[in-house]
Amino acid sequence: MFHFTYYTPTKVVFGKGAEGQTGALVKEQGCKKVLIHYGGGSVIRSGLLDRIKASLDQAGVAYTALGGVVPNPRLSLVYQGIELAEKEGVDFILAVGGGSVIDSSKAIAYGLTNKGDVWDFYDHTRQASACLPVGVVLTISAAGSEMSNSSVITKDEGGVKRGYNNDLCRPKFAVMDPELTITLPPYQTASGCTDIMMHTMERYFCPEGSMELTDSIAEGLLRTVMKNAKILHADPGNYDARAEIMWAGSLSHNGLTGTGRGDWATHGLEHEMGGMFDVTHGAGLAAVWGSWARYVYQNCLNRFVRFAVNVMGVENAGTPEETALRGIEAVEDFYRSIDMPTCFSELGISPTQEQMETMADMCIVAGGGQKGVAKVLHEADCLKIYQMANH
Amino acid sequence: MFHFTYYTPTKVVFGKGAEGQTGALVKEQGCKKVLIHYGGGSVIRSGLLDRIKASLDQAGVAYTALGGVVPNPRLSLVYQGIELAEKEGVDFILAVGGGSVIDSSKAIAYGLTNKGDVWDFYDHTRQASACLPVGVVLTISAAGSEMSNSSVITKDEGGVKRGYNNDLCRPKFAVMDPELTITLPPYQTASGCTDIMMHTMERYFCPEGSMELTDSIAEGLLRTVMKNAKILHADPGNYDARAEIMWAGSLSHNGLTGTGRGDWATHGLEHEMGGMFDVTHGAGLAAVWGSWARYVYQNCLNRFVRFAVNVMGVENAGTPEETALRGIEAVEDFYRSIDMPTCFSELGISPTQEQMETMADMCIVAGGGQKGVAKVLHEADCLKIYQMANH
Repeated sequence: MFHFTYYTPTKVVFGKGAEGQTGALVKEQGCKKVLIHYGGGSVIRSGLLDRIKASLDQAGVAYTALGGVVPNPRLSLVYQGIELAEKEGVDFILAVGGGSVIDSSKAIAYGLTNKGDVWDFYDHTRQASACLPVGVVLTISAAGSEMSNSSVITKDEGGVKRGYNNDLCRPKFAVMDPELTITLPPYQTASGCTDIMMHTMERYFCPEGSMELTDSIAEGLLRTVMKNAKILHADPGNYDARAEIMWAGSLSHNGLTGTGRGDWATHGLEHEMGGMFDVTHGAGLAAVWGSWARYVYQNCLNRFVRFAVNVMGVENAGTPEETALRGIEAVEDFYRSIDMPTCFSELGISPTQEQMETMADMCIVAGGGQKGVAKVLHEADCLKIYQMANH
Repeated sequence: MFHFTYYTPTKVVFGKGAEGQTGALVKEQGCKKVLIHYGGGSVIRSGLLDRIKASLDQAGVAYTALGGVVPNPRLSLVYQGIELAEKEGVDFILAVGGGSVIDSSKAIAYGLTNKGDVWDFYDHTRQASACLPVGVVLTISAAGSEMSNSSVITKDEGGVKRGYNNDLCRPKFAVMDPELTITLPPYQTASGCTDIMMHTMERYFCPEGSMELTDSIAEGLLRTVMKNAKILHADPGNYDARAEIMWAGSLSHNGLTGTGRGDWATHGLEHEMGGMFDVTHGAGLAAVWGSWARYVYQNCLNRFVRFAVNVMGVENAGTPEETALRGIEAVEDFYRSIDMPTCFSELGISPTQEQMETMADMCIVAGGGQKGVAKVLHEADCLKIYQMANH
């Protein structure tokens, strides 16, 4: 009967040169000292970090900075950030980067406002009661973390990758200049597009009834992302396509395309691949999705048929099973067209039987229990899906 | 180049029985005393007001109440609300009703936090610097005021109807139980659907480039509203259709379907009709839209063609002009199918030439100058559109 909570308080400032407003946006928050958190050298080389600092200087806001966030962001840097921010009296975290930087920032923000080990939240042994305000200057369209309530952190020892969702961490603002994403390598752009699609597809494949309005938004978003991902594959400098993808990234993970629904098994499966092999998140999702879909589609047949027809443009011919399978094939064809993998070998990994068993075990046993609603997955199901993808 | 700000901080709690959470939601805001603001007797007769009071009692929140809001809400009641709220030490306004009640609540909230006459903001002679927090229990799907930054107030003397937009007034929360709208008279339901469509259509008919993603969301929303408006015309008790319409009402006016764009001439034209003849807002929009569309479509031809094909299902045959005109006719056919007017006589008004001249004058001269972007309208254009609709 359509019960949901929808909460997207993040103020989005979108467009060319939007990063020039960062200082004013931080100042609006009434804070005294900012921790600028970022990743590698690209924000330094591009001059973006200097422009952000200049904007903060202009607004009269003090800051300190901590770089070094890597993909599948590490808990050890989160601890370092908490220590630095406490020492410096920081009361606002400004993430300059993509999902990894934003997620690391959210974890630091939790750590600064809750006693005890911040990993407890990701380990789901307790709930956060507060979160320091976080703002974002987005440089990668992918994770949607700029408007979402989620963050994912990887524990250095053992590569345990865990997510924690709480509305407290939704960023106060997100500065989105599509031009900042133009220099991304093609593989990162395509991985981002895959991640964006998956955030909507995870919410789409649910057996129970869905709102028509939500479906129409989800389907329109998926078609738009696929069209513009292909444009960027051929023409990485296309600003308009960058803008479409960037806005789709935010809307695909702020709750709009789900209004309460969600399967999330593919993300669960990929988290273990990311934790063990450190693969790019979007590429990991692409590599395992087809196997997941073939394993579960019969339990959620109506939705796979609707998806095939409305999103992938499959003619509704033959049996529902045939239509559903053609839709799955069409997604894999699309992934190949933007050089995304559709199996483990294309992803560049070849896990042993033992490694797959470990991933399946971690996904379910350590990962909070059964996964998914399209078909409920237990440990043996996860192992089977990994095996199906392992070619 | 797709510049926009998007800011929708309202927490939506959606579903059957959601109003039971009102007390807890108000308490989250940390306020001491609530003004419950409502309209006529229906919220009393239905028992809703008692349920809201019980929810506030349970949460331990004190309150006072003021009813009497009418459609095209009056400035005099706003003044009365400000006086009462000041006397009672109110620090939160809870609107229980539809757009008129919410808009009246927003005006009271401005009045309580800014010195001087609150009408100044609606008269656009100065800007508000603050706004008391407002929450909403929605009972009519139409205005979208539950998530929007706008409110419209009518000055009792002379029927001057003016809107004021400011992010400060966006509600803190909106409780949305589709079941509360089931008892609405069919004319109010249809008028609400029309208003919802218009909030998206006002944003759609802009000559400059639009984001594909925004277009696809807008088009999906319009198709969903038309489909479910017809369902409700035949079956007013259909909960699922009520839910689709209610959520569409919020998304159509929270900024999502525009991302910065907007024409708003039809709303400007209708405001004068509402002010002079006190017509139902949605019905007034339906009665004048076709005339506006025929007057402007050649200046915004590509958008009208796209609309005809993607929203109204018109085959793209003949010239672009023919396709556009068929799209306009299809909208009018739809309005007739849900008993909405498409001209002044069907709306039940027959303004004299002098009255139309007065409306055109007030729309442009007193109403802040030229209107629209699909085609920029001056006083003579507005008069012409009123004359076209006057049959």
